Amino acid sequence: MTQQSKPVVTVLTAPGEQQPPGMDALKARAEVRFACDEQTLRDTLPGTDVMMVTDFRTEALEAAWPCADKLQWIHATSAGVDALMFPGLIESDVVVTNARGIFDRTIAEYVLCTILMFAKDFPNSIRLQHRHEWKHRDTERAEGKQVLVVGAGSIGRQIGRLVRAAGLQPHGIARTPRHDDPDFVAVHGNDDLFNQLPHYDFVVIAAPLTPQTEGLFDHKAFKAMRNSARLINIGRGPIVKTDDLIVALEDGEIAGAALDVFEEEPLPKGHPLWDMENVIMTAHMAGDFIGWKRALTDQFLENFDLWHKGRDLFNLVDKRLGYAGSK
Amino acid sequence: MTQQSKPVVTVLTAPGEQQPPGMDALKARAEVRFACDEQTLRDTLPGTDVMMVTDFRTEALEAAWPCADKLQWIHATSAGVDALMFPGLIESDVVVTNARGIFDRTIAEYVLCTILMFAKDFPNSIRLQHRHEWKHRDTERAEGKQVLVVGAGSIGRQIGRLVRAAGLQPHGIARTPRHDDPDFVAVHGNDDLFNQLPHYDFVVIAAPLTPQTEGLFDHKAFKAMRNSARLINIGRGPIVKTDDLIVALEDGEIAGAALDVFEEEPLPKGHPLWDMENVIMTAHMAGDFIGWKRALTDQFLENFDLWHKGRDLFNLVDKRLGYAGSK
Repeated sequence: MTQQSKPVVTVLTAPGEQQPPGMDALKARAEVRFACDEQTLRDTLPGTDVMMVTDFRTEALEAAWPCADKLQWIHATSAGVDALMFPGLIESDVVVTNARGIFDRTIAEYVLCTILMFAKDFPNSIRLQHRHEWKHRDTERAEGKQVLVVGAGSIGRQIGRLVRAAGLQPHGIARTPRHDDPDFVAVHGNDDLFNQLPHYDFVVIAAPLTPQTEGLFDHKAFKAMRNSARLINIGRGPIVKTDDLIVALEDGEIAGAALDVFEEEPLPKGHPLWDMENVIMTAHMAGDFIGWKRALTDQFLENFDLWHKGRDLFNLVDKRLGYAGSK
Repeated sequence: MTQQSKPVVTVLTAPGEQQPPGMDALKARAEVRFACDEQTLRDTLPGTDVMMVTDFRTEALEAAWPCADKLQWIHATSAGVDALMFPGLIESDVVVTNARGIFDRTIAEYVLCTILMFAKDFPNSIRLQHRHEWKHRDTERAEGKQVLVVGAGSIGRQIGRLVRAAGLQPHGIARTPRHDDPDFVAVHGNDDLFNQLPHYDFVVIAAPLTPQTEGLFDHKAFKAMRNSARLINIGRGPIVKTDDLIVALEDGEIAGAALDVFEEEPLPKGHPLWDMENVIMTAHMAGDFIGWKRALTDQFLENFDLWHKGRDLFNLVDKRLGYAGSK
């Protein structure tokens, strides 16, 4: 294969982010270019056949889009592809794939962990420990608790499966309701969300960010939830109206929240969420197990080989829906 | 039934502890007396047929033992009966039962929670939150991790079952080794403990406190464990040599500990364990779900009805072993 015949792959990272691991394997099969912002992307896009986008918050691609003269396929190394769903790309013939599957299990473990931490009152135990205070409390059983997983895609299903194995009762919310689901006690339709919300001890947001889900969890949703309920968000920050959440937590409309994603990331210092005792938070890392970056490159390379052979790609994103449809 | 024919039940609580709930149901079937220390116990023991002991740390019973003139049966509302295993009682005909079963599930949930918290680095996340600090880290998968449960009794089995359902690999340590166990990948014999210790990510103490287990986890045990291993103790404090544990944690012989029980309870203010960042601790409450005291009384009443009818009691403690033998 001559240099000219090698496909051109542009890797778009966040500014200041290191190159992903495993690039040598890619360089053996393609001419690899790197970009990290709009300007470098404008320089690299002309002639690019394939893009690997590791920056799930990127705005550079939309800005540099007119420079994409030859692009066939964009692979996002994230589960959420909301940053790519701009009109120019949606209306183009460029196909989009995502990292479906890579983060499922670890995100499910994170969700089960936060459920158990709330049940066992561990946030308070750690604060008491900090103050050298011995204080016995009676805590909750997790067994039998009702869990609503909003978004029954690849991640949502894994959450359903794991919390069910641990003795809880998961229901799902998805486009298509069904009662013969292997991972959920039942799956309810999107339209049924507000009817379902009053019945759960834990509500888990595992949905993609789309025009339909943006701001979906507002004061009306929190009012519909049990006062004893906890919200867990491992989806995307803007699905929750943060100001409404803070009011709901302060007023006791709901009992707690575990948040891995936020409307603004990093969450600014001084933001009221930091100091709320009924909030557990982490830095958008729920799925990021040791070795995740290499796993993401390996998944891209697998798809790249299929693309190179002219075969069907896996993890295709439905650009109309804004996420990977069911298999 | 005349007043004279009613059996006499003495309920021994800790000093200052409230009467257990559900006593009205007991009073309908027996003359009920209450004691909370050696003196009140000396007054109530003569004529007592049955004791319900809610103070799992009691020293009063051994001290007042000579006043037990008619005692047939002692029920401990705890899983551990170490405080009752003094020579006078062991050598007597008095039978002992315990609260086997009541705490199994919630203790297993606690253990799974601490395993997941270590894997996901939640103790650090809560500290970072306290400091308003956004700090992304890669964390561990729990799936596939190796767990050694020391003590494969009622609680240990439930731990094995639950962590296995959550995707981990539990092995047990018990008197009788076996490979066809429903709850463990394998159960190894007590003599094999030190050969097994190097192979596990998590070591869970779910054993009763007996002369054989007292001080079992000392510097030699910690040296045998992986540097990356975490110790979880929901058994009894004196099974672990606390000073050795602190050295092992400071020297990196092991990576962390989750402790619900301690050699001295409450753990004194100023004790070095409080400030160790790789230690999670709670106030001897792992099994104490909301409603546990009523559940304990109900379990005693169930056994009391059997006793009253002259039938076999359940949850009999083998006084020679110091715990309830396998069913």
